[in-house]
Amino acid sequence: MLKDFERRFRHKSNKQKDNLFDYSYHKSGSIPGTLRIPPHATTPKIDVIDYTEEKVTCHHQVTPQDCLKYLQTPTISWVDVAGLGDAEIFQALGTFFELHPLLLEDIVNAPQRPKLVNYVDCIAIIIQMAIAKPSREGFWLEQVSIIIGKNYVLSVQEEADFDCFAPVRDRILHNQGIIRQQKPDYLAYALWDAIIDGYFPILEDYGEQIEWLEDEVMLNPTDVTLQKIYQVRRELLALRRAIWPQRDTINHLLRDRYPLISDDVRLYLRDCYDRTVQIIDITETYRELASGLMDVYLSAVSNKMNEIMKVLAVISTIFIPLTFIVGVYGMNFNPAASPWNMPELNWYWGYPVFWGLTLLIAVGLVYFFWRRGWFQNTTTPRRR
Amino acid sequence: MLKDFERRFRHKSNKQKDNLFDYSYHKSGSIPGTLRIPPHATTPKIDVIDYTEEKVTCHHQVTPQDCLKYLQTPTISWVDVAGLGDAEIFQALGTFFELHPLLLEDIVNAPQRPKLVNYVDCIAIIIQMAIAKPSREGFWLEQVSIIIGKNYVLSVQEEADFDCFAPVRDRILHNQGIIRQQKPDYLAYALWDAIIDGYFPILEDYGEQIEWLEDEVMLNPTDVTLQKIYQVRRELLALRRAIWPQRDTINHLLRDRYPLISDDVRLYLRDCYDRTVQIIDITETYRELASGLMDVYLSAVSNKMNEIMKVLAVISTIFIPLTFIVGVYGMNFNPAASPWNMPELNWYWGYPVFWGLTLLIAVGLVYFFWRRGWFQNTTTPRRR
Amino acid sequence: MLKDFERRFRHKSNKQKDNLFDYSYHKSGSIPGTLRIPPHATTPKIDVIDYTEEKVTCHHQVTPQDCLKYLQTPTISWVDVAGLGDAEIFQALGTFFELHPLLLEDIVNAPQRPKLVNYVDCIAIIIQMAIAKPSREGFWLEQVSIIIGKNYVLSVQEEADFDCFAPVRDRILHNQGIIRQQKPDYLAYALWDAIIDGYFPILEDYGEQIEWLEDEVMLNPTDVTLQKIYQVRRELLALRRAIWPQRDTINHLLRDRYPLISDDVRLYLRDCYDRTVQIIDITETYRELASGLMDVYLSAVSNKMNEIMKVLAVISTIFIPLTFIVGVYGMNFNPAASPWNMPELNWYWGYPVFWGLTLLIAVGLVYFFWRRGWFQNTTTPRRR
Amino acid sequence: MLKDFERRFRHKSNKQKDNLFDYSYHKSGSIPGTLRIPPHATTPKIDVIDYTEEKVTCHHQVTPQDCLKYLQTPTISWVDVAGLGDAEIFQALGTFFELHPLLLEDIVNAPQRPKLVNYVDCIAIIIQMAIAKPSREGFWLEQVSIIIGKNYVLSVQEEADFDCFAPVRDRILHNQGIIRQQKPDYLAYALWDAIIDGYFPILEDYGEQIEWLEDEVMLNPTDVTLQKIYQVRRELLALRRAIWPQRDTINHLLRDRYPLISDDVRLYLRDCYDRTVQIIDITETYRELASGLMDVYLSAVSNKMNEIMKVLAVISTIFIPLTFIVGVYGMNFNPAASPWNMPELNWYWGYPVFWGLTLLIAVGLVYFFWRRGWFQNTTTPRRR
Amino acid sequence: MLKDFERRFRHKSNKQKDNLFDYSYHKSGSIPGTLRIPPHATTPKIDVIDYTEEKVTCHHQVTPQDCLKYLQTPTISWVDVAGLGDAEIFQALGTFFELHPLLLEDIVNAPQRPKLVNYVDCIAIIIQMAIAKPSREGFWLEQVSIIIGKNYVLSVQEEADFDCFAPVRDRILHNQGIIRQQKPDYLAYALWDAIIDGYFPILEDYGEQIEWLEDEVMLNPTDVTLQKIYQVRRELLALRRAIWPQRDTINHLLRDRYPLISDDVRLYLRDCYDRTVQIIDITETYRELASGLMDVYLSAVSNKMNEIMKVLAVISTIFIPLTFIVGVYGMNFNPAASPWNMPELNWYWGYPVFWGLTLLIAVGLVYFFWRRGWFQNTTTPRRR
Repeated sequence: MLKDFERRFRHKSNKQKDNLFDYSYHKSGSIPGTLRIPPHATTPKIDVIDYTEEKVTCHHQVTPQDCLKYLQTPTISWVDVAGLGDAEIFQALGTFFELHPLLLEDIVNAPQRPKLVNYVDCIAIIIQMAIAKPSREGFWLEQVSIIIGKNYVLSVQEEADFDCFAPVRDRILHNQGIIRQQKPDYLAYALWDAIIDGYFPILEDYGEQIEWLEDEVMLNPTDVTLQKIYQVRRELLALRRAIWPQRDTINHLLRDRYPLISDDVRLYLRDCYDRTVQIIDITETYRELASGLMDVYLSAVSNKMNEIMKVLAVISTIFIPLTFIVGVYGMNFNPAASPWNMPELNWYWGYPVFWGLTLLIAVGLVYFFWRRGWFQNTTTPRRR
Repeated sequence: MLKDFERRFRHKSNKQKDNLFDYSYHKSGSIPGTLRIPPHATTPKIDVIDYTEEKVTCHHQVTPQDCLKYLQTPTISWVDVAGLGDAEIFQALGTFFELHPLLLEDIVNAPQRPKLVNYVDCIAIIIQMAIAKPSREGFWLEQVSIIIGKNYVLSVQEEADFDCFAPVRDRILHNQGIIRQQKPDYLAYALWDAIIDGYFPILEDYGEQIEWLEDEVMLNPTDVTLQKIYQVRRELLALRRAIWPQRDTINHLLRDRYPLISDDVRLYLRDCYDRTVQIIDITETYRELASGLMDVYLSAVSNKMNEIMKVLAVISTIFIPLTFIVGVYGMNFNPAASPWNMPELNWYWGYPVFWGLTLLIAVGLVYFFWRRGWFQNTTTPRRR
Repeated sequence: MLKDFERRFRHKSNKQKDNLFDYSYHKSGSIPGTLRIPPHATTPKIDVIDYTEEKVTCHHQVTPQDCLKYLQTPTISWVDVAGLGDAEIFQALGTFFELHPLLLEDIVNAPQRPKLVNYVDCIAIIIQMAIAKPSREGFWLEQVSIIIGKNYVLSVQEEADFDCFAPVRDRILHNQGIIRQQKPDYLAYALWDAIIDGYFPILEDYGEQIEWLEDEVMLNPTDVTLQKIYQVRRELLALRRAIWPQRDTINHLLRDRYPLISDDVRLYLRDCYDRTVQIIDITETYRELASGLMDVYLSAVSNKMNEIMKVLAVISTIFIPLTFIVGVYGMNFNPAASPWNMPELNWYWGYPVFWGLTLLIAVGLVYFFWRRGWFQNTTTPRRR
Repeated sequence: MLKDFERRFRHKSNKQKDNLFDYSYHKSGSIPGTLRIPPHATTPKIDVIDYTEEKVTCHHQVTPQDCLKYLQTPTISWVDVAGLGDAEIFQALGTFFELHPLLLEDIVNAPQRPKLVNYVDCIAIIIQMAIAKPSREGFWLEQVSIIIGKNYVLSVQEEADFDCFAPVRDRILHNQGIIRQQKPDYLAYALWDAIIDGYFPILEDYGEQIEWLEDEVMLNPTDVTLQKIYQVRRELLALRRAIWPQRDTINHLLRDRYPLISDDVRLYLRDCYDRTVQIIDITETYRELASGLMDVYLSAVSNKMNEIMKVLAVISTIFIPLTFIVGVYGMNFNPAASPWNMPELNWYWGYPVFWGLTLLIAVGLVYFFWRRGWFQNTTTPRRR
Repeated sequence: MLKDFERRFRHKSNKQKDNLFDYSYHKSGSIPGTLRIPPHATTPKIDVIDYTEEKVTCHHQVTPQDCLKYLQTPTISWVDVAGLGDAEIFQALGTFFELHPLLLEDIVNAPQRPKLVNYVDCIAIIIQMAIAKPSREGFWLEQVSIIIGKNYVLSVQEEADFDCFAPVRDRILHNQGIIRQQKPDYLAYALWDAIIDGYFPILEDYGEQIEWLEDEVMLNPTDVTLQKIYQVRRELLALRRAIWPQRDTINHLLRDRYPLISDDVRLYLRDCYDRTVQIIDITETYRELASGLMDVYLSAVSNKMNEIMKVLAVISTIFIPLTFIVGVYGMNFNPAASPWNMPELNWYWGYPVFWGLTLLIAVGLVYFFWRRGWFQNTTTPRRR
């Protein structure tokens, strides 16, 4: 399933690494409300669950026209659309659900910035869902739109492949918890809740990545470490960008009194809000840790360089003067020409004295370096 | 067309690279409302489109006096002025449209900081339009002023060459969308919307530039990479400077109740606002990415240096002691003078023993470096 | 005692270093209010202290059912639960104390972000307690929930091992201070106060660590210093994350008028608030100091490198030219072949002149370096 | 004129480079309202312009007593005091204008932080005027106090030498614009406007300096570049410090309704406010650019070092092994002592083989470096 | 006097360098209002000045009981307590002045965070006084509490040695200014004003230190410079921490209407507030300058390293190839064995040709370095 998405995604944008910083816009000067279907979008699939406290019916692969009849019953209808690939279907949905053209545009032209728009008889919530990649390295973002009406909830997902709404569907079908006794606002809360909870496992992965990077940066910092730190910072930035506006969105919903949202559900949304704040909080914390790691990386690289320089300097400084001395006694000044010309070469103890001098100089330099603390091991390879 | 602008721009300011950080001011102590025509400004060209839901008339190259008669009809008149090069024309426009001298000054003395000023019978909006350079490297900024009156919209553009209003003009002429059924406020919204949408392609270019720079900084960081990163940061700063005050401007328009702005258009402006926030959001994200790239660049350069140092240190450290040894046996101490003087030179196995010693030292040092991990390849040239 | 916790903690999360950045979340789509007992949680132990100004009774290891009867008396009952390891007990407590399912979930699914939730007949405060490790290096965080009812206080601690409430218990039992004359709000304040005061000794340890690091970074910066600075920054970040939301929590309690909180206790809470602000203030100050230390560390490492480079450069620069000269006179050009071939070798003063030249060059270079200030000691090892 | 100021300034504070970060304070515990005349202050010179719409009279070098009679006429009197060097004159002015002792202190004890104080019958505005140095490198700050009364404006300048009020004076004398038809509030606005417009040419200089520095940092970064960047950052900091509080000052004036400020003038002040915001905006932009330049500078210096290291490493790595080889064949092992002792020396092709080996090694190493990309020119000296 | 304090301070905390980051806290769970006398605190000394506009009496070394009788007269009584070393005295004062236990605790358990607490019949202000060290390097902080009652002011100082209230005392005794005609609120203002003015000379010292450091960092950056910059940043941080909350304190006093504070004194407090803002402003400016200096320091150190590397690289690169050449002609290939073996050694012009070659290479390399700009002096030692 995920492979389908990955394949389709590659077709969509062959020059980008991931869709974390994507955004949608229309051509300058185009008529407001124009629907632009992305080239590789999946064909929408519409499912309807119609329920009251007592009974529940489930309809798969319905047409927009079918929805109309479920809307006209007093039961609560959850219309779930997966896929954005057909403008006509959305035009039809727009007509039957009486959606504002701008809202329809925002739903289809994904991804938009998360937002809440209050219309006369419905509330539209547009948010980003985070889906962990199967490799657990990074994630995708997918737009989900939730429209709350008097007796319906319309949810639109960008893709049909990931369905994080399955547990909610089960809860309705098997009448678990209080979901069947509640109004559409509770259903919308349940969907939103499922999306927000989807962020936590991703965060957990980043927490582990940062711990690994902390060890790596201390023990063996390489170019790959650097790239990983940058990658983590980049993806946390994307995560923050996705979750930050959702906080404002819930906050608006909590602060302003909307007739479609009951006080009871408001209490549950408050819980949602707390969790969103927690996600932001953790994201920021991880970002600060990752940014601190960058500093540590730079320092560790500097330290490594210092160590290399020290080895070079110690060896060079000891042997360069000695090489000078051996060079001196390799000169060919003619001792025969004058008694001043290298008489040492003919001394009885000449060669042993040379070795004595050499050792003296070497030991003296080693002592000098030892006094300056150059032999202290500044880079301890073990952390704890 | 763009070349015209570029040429004119060069005349205007021969010492600046682009006009991104330009600003206009008048001489200290001058009379408020003084119009200073920039030296190379183009002569203003006035077009009027006069329309109701039923009919539309189009007048090119009119004089300010002509405008007056369109203003006096109940039809909606869109007076579009392109070019700032004639003070008299603007004085005349100021008189006929009853514009405050300070407003007239702001319109002509471009560029000003984007702002919204509410006058008794009109609302003046001064904003910055971003125009991508044909090379897709960087952009120009051009000031656009939109004055909304009871039955007219007066728009003033700095240059005649770029006309991002063409699609809006077409929509009026061909009666596309709902623009002909609406009041001047909707027309102003449509113009503003076209300007804001013009920012997105520029942002997209920066997104791609950053992706390229990410690869370049990892694989082959050079001085040019550094300059490109700085350039991107500099231009994103300019972009933020241009778009940030526009957010406040729309926000003012949304928050305060202006009689000239209908509730319906307010909903469309809200969409504009969301898009402006999205532009700011992306700009900030790109700025953070670019700033993170700078860190990575610095680290990559440090790593490269480390690698160079290592090669130097390994070679030097291995050969410097060996060179000392060969120097020793190049000395000319006279073996005849004493049995202590370099007897090795006359040993039977002297030369082979020397080579054995040499190899031993070399292998020992290589082993020492291998143990310290100097031969681990810290700079992997491939990223993915 | 602390070892118990450490052991249990290791079982809980074998891949993490400490629990400072832990957080709790439920599976996406699960029913709100689900209690997930952490795998190694301790079995809850319930103690009740029932008191009026005149008399006090103390009950250990009671069952949730027992609590009910204490609740029904007009005396003030402090029900203290330590340990989260039994869902049924908490379900029972939830029923008897009439707690909202979401509140019960927050209490059990620790750690949550500190928060204040106001219910119809009780106020719930969820906060983080900081417990210094016995080694005085770092700390653990433990969640404490305090629910204030009309005539009871229910406190839930994550662990049974650390009991920072002992002094408060003593004050009740021995009637010290005014605690027995006051309502549950004062008791809740006393518990909270005890928790907040627990942060100060931890802060003091960090203050000392920073002073040590200041000295270490100036005198002898090594990799270990770097790791310690990072560790301190990391833990201060955790501390800030724990204390920051508590400020908002108290602030809410102070700002909004809750009937369960008397004006008198509000004055005491104001004192609590001031102390929380002080903790935040000190944490931020320490974070800035630690961040400044990082800069100093980097500079100190650079300085060390400079010193090494200088030694290397001075020695190399002096001896490399000299080695060239001695090499020259070690050449074997045949003086017999031409009068131009190394006549110096046969000069009477050849060898002394060579030494004179050598000394001249050496002294000249030393003078050159001295003039450029290379012999100034840039790294003074003593600070004060 | 400017030299006078410079000379006087040097006397004032012989240890400071400029007066950008000066501030004034009185001795701890002194009586509020004490006037401390700075040691080298110029003697105050009082000019009065008395005008109505119809006529204008101009009086130079008047005494404080003279002012009193102009104040008692219904005409608008602009009393301009230049110089702070006489406490008695200011005491007299304080008495005649009925100024609060604290206000008088703020006027005389310059420089104060810009502020607005509203008294019963006057509004006092204390601001900083920026004066470009004649060398166009940097600027001075001078305090200007403007007191708006019912029928007078009292302006006090720190120095007599710079008179940025001359154009305003001309506008009154020659009845240009609407200044003669307006109340004192308009005159105060005109003065303030002249001061604010004085900031722009200074900003323009910094804009140019930053462009030069951008080029310099890319092409040839030296210590001087670094000092210039620091200098620019330092002076922009001073500029921000001078202008930032002025924004609040105007904002107060706009927000609160003062009877002395008419709605009409409020519109002009709004323009002033926009311009102040623009100055802040540009200052911040320049500060960010300068701060980004610092990063680029550091990277450029690192790159230069890399280039130097590469040259050193390539040359050393190629020649050090070769020097070892030539050393080997310079050894004096006695070929006569054994057939193993350096038989190469007596080979027929010995010397040519040596050269072959040497070339092979050199070419091999060059190829090795070429493969690692060391010969790519990382520092391109041209930017565009 | 200052030595007394220093001695006592050392006793207090033998492990800390200064008291800038001290804070006071009580044991977790202790009874609120517990007084903990610091071990080395000085014995309190109580002075009372009792005054009306007409007459003034002065009483030294009185007991708390004595205070009671001065309190009961309608005259204004200033009770000044210096030293915190006796819990009983403070208990007595608390009883006579009817102080809240929490207030008494805050007064004695110094240092607290500056704050304002409003009680029913008094206002308590707790602030930090800054005292310059006699060496003018750094400062101490001392807590001062000022309690304003209906007809008294109670001031409590931590130490008896520094008395910055002396000028205020003189003003009362000699009836200078308007202090005798005013209520206790004016007296409190006068005391506060004296404390705030005490910050300025300290700031001035830091201003000078930063100027010195600017020169030092440009001309001769050493480790000591680095330590000084860190020290300045550290102390400015402490200064900010002390003054920042005072601004809020005064602001509260200005904003909320307290019956004990007259409108007249509010005007004076407004002046106090302006000065506090100025102190914060200067502190922040200095902090930014110091932080910019750190960047410059790092760059200057890098530049120095570049210069060292250049010298090393130039010398090595020139002489290493030359040394190879001289090595070649020091080889002992036997010219007798073959005509190919080093025939150069027997050439007539061999030696002169060798020198020619040597010079050519040397000049060539020097030219190469000159072309690359290595001989440009990048580190100009003079700034101006």
